[in-house]
Amino acid sequence: MLTHFTPGGEAHMVDVGAKPETARRALAEGRIQMQLATLTLIEQGAHAKGDVLGVARLAGIMGAKRTADLIPLCHPLSLTRVEIELTPVADESSVWCRATVETQGRTGVEMEALCAVQISLLTIYDMCKAIDRGMRISDVQLVEKAGGRSGHWRRETQDAP
Amino acid sequence: MLTHFTPGGEAHMVDVGAKPETARRALAEGRIQMQLATLTLIEQGAHAKGDVLGVARLAGIMGAKRTADLIPLCHPLSLTRVEIELTPVADESSVWCRATVETQGRTGVEMEALCAVQISLLTIYDMCKAIDRGMRISDVQLVEKAGGRSGHWRRETQDAP
Amino acid sequence: MLTHFTPGGEAHMVDVGAKPETARRALAEGRIQMQLATLTLIEQGAHAKGDVLGVARLAGIMGAKRTADLIPLCHPLSLTRVEIELTPVADESSVWCRATVETQGRTGVEMEALCAVQISLLTIYDMCKAIDRGMRISDVQLVEKAGGRSGHWRRETQDAP
Amino acid sequence: MLTHFTPGGEAHMVDVGAKPETARRALAEGRIQMQLATLTLIEQGAHAKGDVLGVARLAGIMGAKRTADLIPLCHPLSLTRVEIELTPVADESSVWCRATVETQGRTGVEMEALCAVQISLLTIYDMCKAIDRGMRISDVQLVEKAGGRSGHWRRETQDAP
Amino acid sequence: MLTHFTPGGEAHMVDVGAKPETARRALAEGRIQMQLATLTLIEQGAHAKGDVLGVARLAGIMGAKRTADLIPLCHPLSLTRVEIELTPVADESSVWCRATVETQGRTGVEMEALCAVQISLLTIYDMCKAIDRGMRISDVQLVEKAGGRSGHWRRETQDAP
Amino acid sequence: MLTHFTPGGEAHMVDVGAKPETARRALAEGRIQMQLATLTLIEQGAHAKGDVLGVARLAGIMGAKRTADLIPLCHPLSLTRVEIELTPVADESSVWCRATVETQGRTGVEMEALCAVQISLLTIYDMCKAIDRGMRISDVQLVEKAGGRSGHWRRETQDAP
Repeated sequence: MLTHFTPGGEAHMVDVGAKPETARRALAEGRIQMQLATLTLIEQGAHAKGDVLGVARLAGIMGAKRTADLIPLCHPLSLTRVEIELTPVADESSVWCRATVETQGRTGVEMEALCAVQISLLTIYDMCKAIDRGMRISDVQLVEKAGGRSGHWRRETQDAP
Repeated sequence: MLTHFTPGGEAHMVDVGAKPETARRALAEGRIQMQLATLTLIEQGAHAKGDVLGVARLAGIMGAKRTADLIPLCHPLSLTRVEIELTPVADESSVWCRATVETQGRTGVEMEALCAVQISLLTIYDMCKAIDRGMRISDVQLVEKAGGRSGHWRRETQDAP
Repeated sequence: MLTHFTPGGEAHMVDVGAKPETARRALAEGRIQMQLATLTLIEQGAHAKGDVLGVARLAGIMGAKRTADLIPLCHPLSLTRVEIELTPVADESSVWCRATVETQGRTGVEMEALCAVQISLLTIYDMCKAIDRGMRISDVQLVEKAGGRSGHWRRETQDAP
Repeated sequence: MLTHFTPGGEAHMVDVGAKPETARRALAEGRIQMQLATLTLIEQGAHAKGDVLGVARLAGIMGAKRTADLIPLCHPLSLTRVEIELTPVADESSVWCRATVETQGRTGVEMEALCAVQISLLTIYDMCKAIDRGMRISDVQLVEKAGGRSGHWRRETQDAP
Repeated sequence: MLTHFTPGGEAHMVDVGAKPETARRALAEGRIQMQLATLTLIEQGAHAKGDVLGVARLAGIMGAKRTADLIPLCHPLSLTRVEIELTPVADESSVWCRATVETQGRTGVEMEALCAVQISLLTIYDMCKAIDRGMRISDVQLVEKAGGRSGHWRRETQDAP
Repeated sequence: MLTHFTPGGEAHMVDVGAKPETARRALAEGRIQMQLATLTLIEQGAHAKGDVLGVARLAGIMGAKRTADLIPLCHPLSLTRVEIELTPVADESSVWCRATVETQGRTGVEMEALCAVQISLLTIYDMCKAIDRGMRISDVQLVEKAGGRSGHWRRETQDAP
């Protein structure tokens, strides 16, 4: 049975009051595929004018802070660290995003890390859509989590380069 | 050159003041892949107790309204319609999401439609993560847009079933 | 059938794109009942130190602006006027709230007016709860609406003094 | 004297820094009265298509998380549990809402529970207003609180069925 | 008499429903003074690693969109353009900020332009406070406004370089 | 090097997970200069009708709570106290604002105090701009901070009266 529902089938914000506050970490990733010309433009900007990745990184950090506002049953949490890595990969004509989020809390920060990835990638789409409307966001997934009752978890297969 | 930057390379919210208000529509899609057992659980809830898709749909609608808060250079917009379709597809062990957003405005609503898809799919992840941490969000993309100077656009290939 | 659902029973933000923008007005009311001593304290503050009603009024105005963030299927709207009247009524040991909201838009502003009333009354509760935990909010209802296809509507019976 | 004002009569966010973090719980209730036909429609949807109560429940949970944004002098708080019960009562031609909120914190969660009730009931109004504009929200009140210096409190008389 | 109050002295959101939608523009400015070493560090980052001004610019743009959420009696507005210029001025050991905001609306965008300046400068403070806690924000003011009944206005004296 | 950037020069939300939660306090100040006639009007309202300072005070308190939403790399924090003092100073034809913010946390509350000052002063501008468009916000700065690894800090020179 899904924990986000009561026995009667009604959505609720799960009771985590009895859980201790422990150190939590989550790492999520995802990528946006685009035309090679678009990727080239992004890479040029990163070194000079028009820093698409800088804007996307900030949007992701701010997005992580808004997670509980956006995901209905997500517990509001303080965050002690948000780090976002954006890596252009010419081979795949993609930009990969990796977000690491940490806190001391009663619930994990997987949603915050995934939300950061989604908002970062969406922001790249926004900034490049005028020249490449067909970009696609893919492979958004949790890579690793640590802390809490369920302990350490790591995705077996690795997609990111 | 990317329009979201000034000639000097500085990010700005592009001037759309001279554009007329016209009817705009955007359709975006994406999916979340999961274990078949998870999908089965979701499908059961849709017909009875524990309606994951109902929660995800609402989150997506509300997410569409928050787009300009989340995407740094996105223009704030009223929306006249938001519709979200969530379709479990057993063959692919996935739930597909399709969001249609419309407005009368000076800019398009692609970002709102994509944002709705992202938040809907993230919400599915949130509700099922306790039983299936490895779910993956993919193929988030614009399918169609109408209205505005650039006119009608439709993705050539179709991914959704 | 309820318009907020599709024929398939799924919640959506109703399409109002074909409606013209017209002048809309809504008037809502409600009250909070309390101990007479609490009311007296509020009335004293209104004329001197500790202006409970001033704080509640502002909270209501700001709450009206947040309506579309709070009510899932509510269309985002600009507002052209928000006015909140708070009237202590000793006879009923109550403070009555009346909110008038106006806009030029494709949908009505009933929700905004009701939301303003709710947030105003909740704020009174917040400020006085340390001395009167049992206060009760009642009779929150639409009094009048004007504009739009459904035209003018006015509640037949009057509750407020 | 009301604690939300300084001795000089100026509104402030009360200093709770010296209070210990303890387990807090609040239970609030309220109801929305409507035509019997409206209630019937809601009850049918709860079992099939058009789940008004499901939407209202989610709105209430999300509303609880926004309390400190809405109520000016309310302390921002994490929440460890939010549960919302919506009960159609044919006798009274009403839907009753009961919200339970819990946290570990320095202040109580009465406002969060009341806010959840208000937003849930407003959402029911929103979804049914096209067929029953005269619905009325009443009897929104605190039922019980536990935790903190003032200890346990319970409303003497019971309104809900 | 101040227009933000009713004749009875109560705050309200002024009725602008009768005003036509016209093109509006506002230009605001301000600066943050700091130690010369701090300014040097900022200037180096602007050309290479650690782009303080890039972050501040984005924060200002996003801040402009939040104005009606922050300023109680401010009308919610769409914005059609936001542009922020940040200029290090070695002579004054300051960074100057200039924000230009435009819309088609019933009220002016002075508050949005000032809010953008304030949030941009605060963000610079945030990023540099670990090395220069004594930075000071000054000379935040409207420079020019155009559109609306009151027409064009321009500050007589010029402070920015 | 600025701590808000990684060694690679990318903005991040600094890791504070290893810091203990300690009592934090920050005091910030600033002022808005205006025509003497405007100040007189404000002072009259403070004692009677049209309480500009009351509105500004509330806006500042609410603004403090929104700091992490506005400042990109700022950690989200609970606040245990917010106090705002607004003092008209006829000699300088100014209103001074002083904000005190406290929490128990892993990071300081300087940004919250400064943000409260900025939003309070902006709100005064908003309410008086129709009669005095040229008002200027100045001298927004940290006055004192306590708590945390860097300990107590106090600005040497005093600007406020």
